[in-house]
Amino acid sequence: MIPQVKCLITGAAGFIGSHLVDALLARGATIVGIDPLKLGTRRNLELALQNSRFRFHEADINDLARCGQIIAAETEANPFDMVWHMAANSDIRAGVADPEIDFRYTFLTTHSVLKLMREHKISNLAFASSSAIYGVHAGLLHEDLGPLFPISNYGAMKLASEAAISAAVEAFLGRAWIFRFPNVVGGRATHGAIYDFVRKLKNNPSELEVLGDGFQEKPYLHVSELVDAMLFIVDRARDRLNYFNIGTAGSATTVRYLAEAVVKRMSPRARIRFTGGHKGWVGDVPKFNYSIEKLKKLGWEPRLTSNVAVDRAAEEIVREAH
Amino acid sequence: MIPQVKCLITGAAGFIGSHLVDALLARGATIVGIDPLKLGTRRNLELALQNSRFRFHEADINDLARCGQIIAAETEANPFDMVWHMAANSDIRAGVADPEIDFRYTFLTTHSVLKLMREHKISNLAFASSSAIYGVHAGLLHEDLGPLFPISNYGAMKLASEAAISAAVEAFLGRAWIFRFPNVVGGRATHGAIYDFVRKLKNNPSELEVLGDGFQEKPYLHVSELVDAMLFIVDRARDRLNYFNIGTAGSATTVRYLAEAVVKRMSPRARIRFTGGHKGWVGDVPKFNYSIEKLKKLGWEPRLTSNVAVDRAAEEIVREAH
Repeated sequence: MIPQVKCLITGAAGFIGSHLVDALLARGATIVGIDPLKLGTRRNLELALQNSRFRFHEADINDLARCGQIIAAETEANPFDMVWHMAANSDIRAGVADPEIDFRYTFLTTHSVLKLMREHKISNLAFASSSAIYGVHAGLLHEDLGPLFPISNYGAMKLASEAAISAAVEAFLGRAWIFRFPNVVGGRATHGAIYDFVRKLKNNPSELEVLGDGFQEKPYLHVSELVDAMLFIVDRARDRLNYFNIGTAGSATTVRYLAEAVVKRMSPRARIRFTGGHKGWVGDVPKFNYSIEKLKKLGWEPRLTSNVAVDRAAEEIVREAH
Repeated sequence: MIPQVKCLITGAAGFIGSHLVDALLARGATIVGIDPLKLGTRRNLELALQNSRFRFHEADINDLARCGQIIAAETEANPFDMVWHMAANSDIRAGVADPEIDFRYTFLTTHSVLKLMREHKISNLAFASSSAIYGVHAGLLHEDLGPLFPISNYGAMKLASEAAISAAVEAFLGRAWIFRFPNVVGGRATHGAIYDFVRKLKNNPSELEVLGDGFQEKPYLHVSELVDAMLFIVDRARDRLNYFNIGTAGSATTVRYLAEAVVKRMSPRARIRFTGGHKGWVGDVPKFNYSIEKLKKLGWEPRLTSNVAVDRAAEEIVREAH
């Protein structure tokens, strides 16, 4: 990627979006960030807002009139090289209870981004997809797997987004990069098990209730590595439609480990109580093996194991909570 | 399927929807049909409207207030056993030019149907999906194929619909049947090559212009067989989420054959002129092999070859055009 690239980033104030903003600014990019500040916060952009190459607009990308104006005004000075579409609902459980949430924030945002890109002739798109598109499979989750029957509205609307992007590549996009994220952990998280455990322990420092039996296992990637992988993929993958799993190398972390990592740092004397059962909630895939062979072949490999990523994230999130 | 079943059918006045209405009425079902009469017509329902077990409402399923009232009123007398969601944009080319069309009519309709089913506690859904979800693959298109990167907005929004249904099965639906349609031909068609050729020959009876070189080949299924297969699948496939390709057995028809079938019946002296090139339009998959092994294993097989289906359809469509 050209270091002086000009990017539009949706969800710029969110967990992953804000880390991406920081990394792209460090590379010399000029960035226009858009975020409705619902899950994202100005605090996540503290560093970025001090940089003259960053401009922020509090706006919902689904507000096409408003965002069209922002893009038109920015394009006058200098056209955009690419869009990083990171905006989405990130609370899978909320989306199970109310399908409207993922429809609006996980899919409609993509539909809106594509509309704006077509209208304003921006031809490169990087998109944050998810391992949730795969649904439940017994075997290894590799990129060319089928069938694709997601079990959460979040996964469904990410798959819907991928499909819309795929059709857009045929119709007008120059290039697209689809990243299928695993569970990502780290500072500025707005959701996820670590975040939930920290909040619970704040309310009740003597006991932590954990859904399931604690043996559910997921690979966790630290957000710094995720951002590194995304930049690597955009630099190196040059098909018109590029799609990659991003994940940790063959390691996973149990909910039990995760709970202990938080308790240790937050409230060392707290008792951990497991509710039992093999599933945490509807739409939660209990256990899966995520293949990152394709990404390894491209030349990128994570350095942190899942447990180390979780330890680092617990450290960061507990620190932020104080 | 219980013959006395009560069904809601979206797109009931459309090409396939209206044939489905006729077949279900013949089986003894009670049917409430909904259709905005944009692509569908009252003429398609001529037969059905004489049947006391059929009630029709001119309404767009995306009008949730209106359709919610219709469903509530109907439910009072007798609850619905299932929904057949057939409503969609059926003009792939129109959807390539304007992504809003498939967003609204191919995907949002499914989102709306699921919302209404959840609210009114209807637990069985049959859905008209499409071979267009597969995008371009060199090999055999079987149901468990991946990756899924459709090249038309129509295909993208059908895949989005499948994904939303899959998540709904996890959340609240009792059972869903997804049918992936091939190109379907027959009387009452509102789109497709035969329909286009008939219109063109009406305008200019001396020459028929055909996009491409005429060697593009697709399997065509007659609508009577499609409806038969759908009913068979709903009767026999009893997983919670059932998904089947429906198609012809190893036979396909060239555009050339199709053009000649129409010319022969409509305007025998017309010259056929091919524009050349291997693709008709953006978003059109030039050639593919559709596997129906899964459906055969369930016990259903088509009786008509693709060419015979095309001949029969040309007969019917030319007759309707006079």
